[in-house]
Amino acid sequence: EDQKKQQTVKSSDPYSSDPVRHPALRINSLKPFNAEPPPEILSDSYITPSAIFFKRNHLPVPQVDPDSYQLRVEGLSEGVLMLSLKDLKTKFKKHTITATLQCAGNRRSEMNKVKQVKGLNWGIAAISNATWSGARLRDVLMDAGYYPDVSQWARHVQFEGLDKDVTGTTYGASIPLNKAISEDGDVLLAYEMNGEDLPADHGYPVRVIVPGTVGARNVKWLGKIIVSAEESHSHWQQNDYKGFSPGTDWDTVDFKSAPAIQELPIQSAITMPADGAVVDRSDEEVTIKGYAWSGGGREVVRVDVSVDGGKTWQVAQLRSSEKEQAPAPSPPPGQAWAWKLWEVTAPLPQEAQELEIVCKAVDNSYNMQPDTVSPIWNLRGVLSNAWHRVKVKVRED
Amino acid sequence: EDQKKQQTVKSSDPYSSDPVRHPALRINSLKPFNAEPPPEILSDSYITPSAIFFKRNHLPVPQVDPDSYQLRVEGLSEGVLMLSLKDLKTKFKKHTITATLQCAGNRRSEMNKVKQVKGLNWGIAAISNATWSGARLRDVLMDAGYYPDVSQWARHVQFEGLDKDVTGTTYGASIPLNKAISEDGDVLLAYEMNGEDLPADHGYPVRVIVPGTVGARNVKWLGKIIVSAEESHSHWQQNDYKGFSPGTDWDTVDFKSAPAIQELPIQSAITMPADGAVVDRSDEEVTIKGYAWSGGGREVVRVDVSVDGGKTWQVAQLRSSEKEQAPAPSPPPGQAWAWKLWEVTAPLPQEAQELEIVCKAVDNSYNMQPDTVSPIWNLRGVLSNAWHRVKVKVRED
Ligand SMILES: [Mo]
Ligand SMILES: [Mo]
Repeated sequence: EDQKKQQTVKSSDPYSSDPVRHPALRINSLKPFNAEPPPEILSDSYITPSAIFFKRNHLPVPQVDPDSYQLRVEGLSEGVLMLSLKDLKTKFKKHTITATLQCAGNRRSEMNKVKQVKGLNWGIAAISNATWSGARLRDVLMDAGYYPDVSQWARHVQFEGLDKDVTGTTYGASIPLNKAISEDGDVLLAYEMNGEDLPADHGYPVRVIVPGTVGARNVKWLGKIIVSAEESHSHWQQNDYKGFSPGTDWDTVDFKSAPAIQELPIQSAITMPADGAVVDRSDEEVTIKGYAWSGGGREVVRVDVSVDGGKTWQVAQLRSSEKEQAPAPSPPPGQAWAWKLWEVTAPLPQEAQELEIVCKAVDNSYNMQPDTVSPIWNLRGVLSNAWHRVKVKVRED
Repeated sequence: EDQKKQQTVKSSDPYSSDPVRHPALRINSLKPFNAEPPPEILSDSYITPSAIFFKRNHLPVPQVDPDSYQLRVEGLSEGVLMLSLKDLKTKFKKHTITATLQCAGNRRSEMNKVKQVKGLNWGIAAISNATWSGARLRDVLMDAGYYPDVSQWARHVQFEGLDKDVTGTTYGASIPLNKAISEDGDVLLAYEMNGEDLPADHGYPVRVIVPGTVGARNVKWLGKIIVSAEESHSHWQQNDYKGFSPGTDWDTVDFKSAPAIQELPIQSAITMPADGAVVDRSDEEVTIKGYAWSGGGREVVRVDVSVDGGKTWQVAQLRSSEKEQAPAPSPPPGQAWAWKLWEVTAPLPQEAQELEIVCKAVDNSYNMQPDTVSPIWNLRGVLSNAWHRVKVKVRED
């Protein structure tokens, strides 16, 4: 039904060339396209298949010809560097990482239940994990004339997408220069996702992957890179994607007073069972599954799960690879870019007619998730990382 | 009284040569000496005077002769490097940073109220801020023969103190190699605190300062540095200073299952008014002060304060310098090593007879403090960073 809608629109519609999408996706917005996979499918594979990887587009998907594609790199004293797709693939070493991307608005629907916020009503699946291959941004900047003294005046690396609105304004964002240039930062100009060309929805032919950093800075359909003393002037860097106190409203908000979101805080959620599910008393136990991830390359070291609303806790089993595979080796400190999937089987508490299942994760800086949503509520509904809670009924046989 | 006790002990007592301490300190343990300043004094100065900087000794204070002091650096292929105090001061560039140190057990007393834990009953002042000067560990390791290939086999840098127990076992700890060697890591072999020689209680003549990292790794009275494939084998690295789930007790704990604490999570506390204080209704408002800090060089970007137990919140004013001084410039991302002091004046809520004042801080990765103590309770009472709460009575005039 949704696919049909997309295909029958008039060609004057800037979204008319958007790609066909997987029917299992839960659509939050059709134009621009924003959708997330069903949670129980999400936690079924360690590497999220590209087709069901959450989609977060701000604008129509641009159609980019790979043969004439040119990436512009500017702001360095050697002048402008232009790189073709072939240049990117052949002049620089191909680097592969596994990294989780998460939308700043993941789990926004829980904030909406406290008090209405502005933004797409994401569930718990605006997060996915993939392998990404491409040139390191560091290597490209070196080739474009970066040398250590540049850090005396430059502070940020700006990215511009080729996606634009009707006025011609392109999507844009920036990251701190030290993340871009650090050997351990692992920022990629990626041309492959899960071993294939980037899909149209994920930035074909080239996107930025900024591991450990909010999705919004991982600019897709990359057109331009600018080394700069200033952050991106784009709406999304300056007046969006920032966190505020719960007492701040649209009348009092001063976007200059808060930093642009870069690294994200510790996060986890329960993908199974779903809220409102029913378990049989005769089963005697319930298996609970979910994901956990933290920003800034901080590794998830523990997930605590409760079936009594947080009074008592069990420690879940963590997994860093597909079910049948050997566990992946631990990444170096500060480079844990990928999520962990977790699972725990808990005995059904005697006499309980309803379980409140809760999860909370801990990263290797021992950051914890806040207990409740209200005190972290913010007008834009971002950074929603309170304990995730689902209620499950116990059916007596 | 406590000072007298120290001075009259027999000389066979290994603590007999411990220094005289400031009488304002609140003593948690006399041998080894552990003490914290009164909270309202702590937040009175941005740079904590050395005399009232919290003291956390694991063992007797060793007496080290500066003229014969030799620091041993080993584990690198060029063999052992020995450095005198003069070598450290003259062969390497002097580097100065302002950094906050916090004991892993700061605010442990709040966990003790939930359920008894093992450890010193610290209040909220096992944290302090100072300037530190010394040689960069990075520069010393380079001089000792470090080259990039070392990171192929080495993972940690171990430190041994000159303080020892009756069996001769010295205090020890380690940090990840990449923190030690990174240009942005700012790890110092410090010989000055607040512009003077290190005091005896703070590691004279040389200690390690690992900014952003738990106090326990900032080894005092430094005797030896070992570049190694393994973490320190010391008790404090292996079987202490780790975090566990609230359900883990001394019968079930497996110390190998948790990482050694390195970077600390976001923290804040109210230093004024004190719990149980009284404010007059006719004052119409109450001024609230405190500190906020986060580990890993993450900058505190906001402190929220509530006078109604967390229902409504105000944003506090942050301060990064002494009261009369101009604000310090923002540090580069990832190098915010120093705390912020904060202050807010809140109107007294009408009709309230008692206020529950609460604070919570946010760092630039938007990590938040957990709401309550019980779900982060752990058997060792470390990492106690729930919202800080104090109750204040309103006296009707
Ligand atoms: Mo996003
Ligand atoms: Mo400590």
